[in-house]
Amino acid sequence: MAQRLIVIGGDAAGMSAASQARRRRGRDDLEIVVFERGHFTSYSACGIPYWISGLVSDPEQLIARSPETFRTEYAIDVRTRHEVTAIDLERREVIARDLEQGGEVRERFDELMYAAGAVPVKPSWADTDAGGVFGIQTLDDGAALRDWLDGEPQPRRAVVVGGGYIGVEMAEALIQRGLSVTLVEAGAQPMATVDGDMAELVAEAMRGLGVTIRTDLRVTGLEQRNGRVSAVVTAEGPIPTDVVVLGLGVRPNAALAEAAGIPLGPTGAVRVDRRMRVPGLPGVWAAGDCVETLHRVSGMPVHIPLGTHANKQGRVAGINIGGGYATFMGVIGTAVTKVCDLEVGRTGLRERDATAAGFDFISVIAESTNRAGYYPGARRMTVKLIAERPSGRLLGAQIVGWSEAAKRIDTLAVALWNGMTVDDMTALDLGYAPPYAPAWDPVLIAARKAVDVLAAVDR
Amino acid sequence: MAQRLIVIGGDAAGMSAASQARRRRGRDDLEIVVFERGHFTSYSACGIPYWISGLVSDPEQLIARSPETFRTEYAIDVRTRHEVTAIDLERREVIARDLEQGGEVRERFDELMYAAGAVPVKPSWADTDAGGVFGIQTLDDGAALRDWLDGEPQPRRAVVVGGGYIGVEMAEALIQRGLSVTLVEAGAQPMATVDGDMAELVAEAMRGLGVTIRTDLRVTGLEQRNGRVSAVVTAEGPIPTDVVVLGLGVRPNAALAEAAGIPLGPTGAVRVDRRMRVPGLPGVWAAGDCVETLHRVSGMPVHIPLGTHANKQGRVAGINIGGGYATFMGVIGTAVTKVCDLEVGRTGLRERDATAAGFDFISVIAESTNRAGYYPGARRMTVKLIAERPSGRLLGAQIVGWSEAAKRIDTLAVALWNGMTVDDMTALDLGYAPPYAPAWDPVLIAARKAVDVLAAVDR
Repeated sequence: MAQRLIVIGGDAAGMSAASQARRRRGRDDLEIVVFERGHFTSYSACGIPYWISGLVSDPEQLIARSPETFRTEYAIDVRTRHEVTAIDLERREVIARDLEQGGEVRERFDELMYAAGAVPVKPSWADTDAGGVFGIQTLDDGAALRDWLDGEPQPRRAVVVGGGYIGVEMAEALIQRGLSVTLVEAGAQPMATVDGDMAELVAEAMRGLGVTIRTDLRVTGLEQRNGRVSAVVTAEGPIPTDVVVLGLGVRPNAALAEAAGIPLGPTGAVRVDRRMRVPGLPGVWAAGDCVETLHRVSGMPVHIPLGTHANKQGRVAGINIGGGYATFMGVIGTAVTKVCDLEVGRTGLRERDATAAGFDFISVIAESTNRAGYYPGARRMTVKLIAERPSGRLLGAQIVGWSEAAKRIDTLAVALWNGMTVDDMTALDLGYAPPYAPAWDPVLIAARKAVDVLAAVDR
Repeated sequence: MAQRLIVIGGDAAGMSAASQARRRRGRDDLEIVVFERGHFTSYSACGIPYWISGLVSDPEQLIARSPETFRTEYAIDVRTRHEVTAIDLERREVIARDLEQGGEVRERFDELMYAAGAVPVKPSWADTDAGGVFGIQTLDDGAALRDWLDGEPQPRRAVVVGGGYIGVEMAEALIQRGLSVTLVEAGAQPMATVDGDMAELVAEAMRGLGVTIRTDLRVTGLEQRNGRVSAVVTAEGPIPTDVVVLGLGVRPNAALAEAAGIPLGPTGAVRVDRRMRVPGLPGVWAAGDCVETLHRVSGMPVHIPLGTHANKQGRVAGINIGGGYATFMGVIGTAVTKVCDLEVGRTGLRERDATAAGFDFISVIAESTNRAGYYPGARRMTVKLIAERPSGRLLGAQIVGWSEAAKRIDTLAVALWNGMTVDDMTALDLGYAPPYAPAWDPVLIAARKAVDVLAAVDR
């Protein structure tokens, strides 16, 4: 008799695992059942801001593979609109509610893949009957926001709460749709995923787009009129608005796991080993936005919900479930985004992370250009490096600049991954031609500057 | 009494060395004299094609620092239009001819920096009195070509001989000026700096621009009319033209060194150690396009004339001459270029290099896109990886694609520099956001494919 794999969550991690397991084990050997709460599988949540802005016209484009494709081509029994409500590890069963038809199903498993993802952080004031308050987590969320923006009376003002990636991307998307946008950020700056000196460059660009940025300010409540949100309440008074978008980040969707006795780590996410197994629970696997992972630089567990990790982790779990061997080797916190034309990349530790991890370090900021200075379109590129002292080992890097700036963080990410020192890095053989770089690449200029600073402080 | 450093050649390597030495040793400690045959110092020869095309309007823009700047701000005695004709290692003197005023000077040195650069390969048929035949090596060459293109009768047809970087860039520049351009290449394809399968993508793009490409064809002579070139002669008949541009590459300018008894290596370039010293000749240094260097992947000496290496090597030599400590750690053959909008990057060994170096290897080509498939402007990106078998160690990589393709080679260059295997590479934490990459980065897709191929061939 075939064994059965049950996958909880049909997005990047869950469907990668399911497909990889299927690739190695045929349907006679392994039945695969996926429970997905929403309508879709394997879609790009990261693409939602671009759908809202209108840059991407059809949400179908965000769907990599439909449930139907998984059913017919992969022989994976995908059950959308089914929410798993309990896991019984003793009896090796899950209980799921059919959100469309009602009723419950109870299915046994041999292998369980927990890929329940993350849920948006939603403050209590956002629990409201008033229309016009949106999280941006699923395609369904995106569709609801689009309907609201297109509805009558047509919203003219928006408040985005929280200045992380989604908040910043949504602020841009709403500006592009012609709304007047205020971003409310509890900290000193939006884009706190980079250090303050680099984040300021991003804030400048956002102001240039016309976004009003209110910092050191918390939303504490909502006002409504006729069942529609009419303002957010803050200590500095109400900010009138026709729509509120939450960009307060996400937390691991681990409640179901915790209730079942699956152990969580210090970040509140599910703990897994290198093969994505839940320690101590044979046949139980987890991957994606619901798990914590090793940060290779700090050596500490982190919760970094990102599709690229979810894909890799799901693939690793699926290979292992399929009888192969694969490991997930941790993350270094690489991320890229853009605010209009301004590009932002980061990898490794920020200054505050390096301090928290106990490192002694120096940091440098080097200004250069993305092309040879004389080449048309050359623009400023700012590279920040954080290096351990006295060893010179790279701990983190950030880039802010225009055309072709963000993805250059990958060069630094690979250097960081390999434990290079800034001194090693000055020797790197990087591509040079006038349309792409000055003869001293911005990365090399920054590395040289870091070497000089290290020599000066340790003299 | 101050010691004296004489630098032969006032471009990237020579001036980097001179400035670094000056930074560490004041003028009372070290006199620095630079002899430069041309009119300029520290200019971007790589920028010349863009000046010819008109993209860069003023050649002054290509000059990083003028001789006057070096004289006044660095106290470096730069003597332009002085050609060194002999080096006397016994008496520690150089003899230089003043190309403007005539006459010779003889100057003693304590330290000698040989940075004579490279000279264009010029076949005997190109030794002609006919006007209209140009190498592209110096700003003076570029000025002569521009004058010819602007002169009367105005050239309408051009032949570019040789399809390396300069040949391809010049073909594009001449097309952009409205000439009808034929590229004559002795090998099977232009852009032989990448493997044939990747070079074909470049050839397609060049044909799309309107360049006529003639392959497996050698120019054997010239025809002229009224003192002007009128055709190039080939085995397949004459190709009429009004201007001929040589793009046959360069060879190390080592004759002067050889005559003085400075040892050359197997590539015909000057041999140096890690500190850019000429072995066995204390106080004699060399750097830049006239030296050979270690290829870190093949372990063999190579001659790769490129401004970025010249800058680094000059800096290393200058630090050492200045009493500091620095080493040059070799190259891996990273290079980038573009043909109109098509971008090309390479690093490490091509298939033929890997074979020549004795490696057993597999290669894969992976097609992907530069952005998420649904993001506007997403275009094909082709990544080729060459990996040792059975170890999986990366040996080389090539990228051809559009927007933001070329500089992604740096990601692979840093992986190669660190000796990563393709299996290691599948775990890399690279930046992901829809405007920059699919959730599986093109580099990761290629690495996964290489892992699969290795597993299949070694099963």
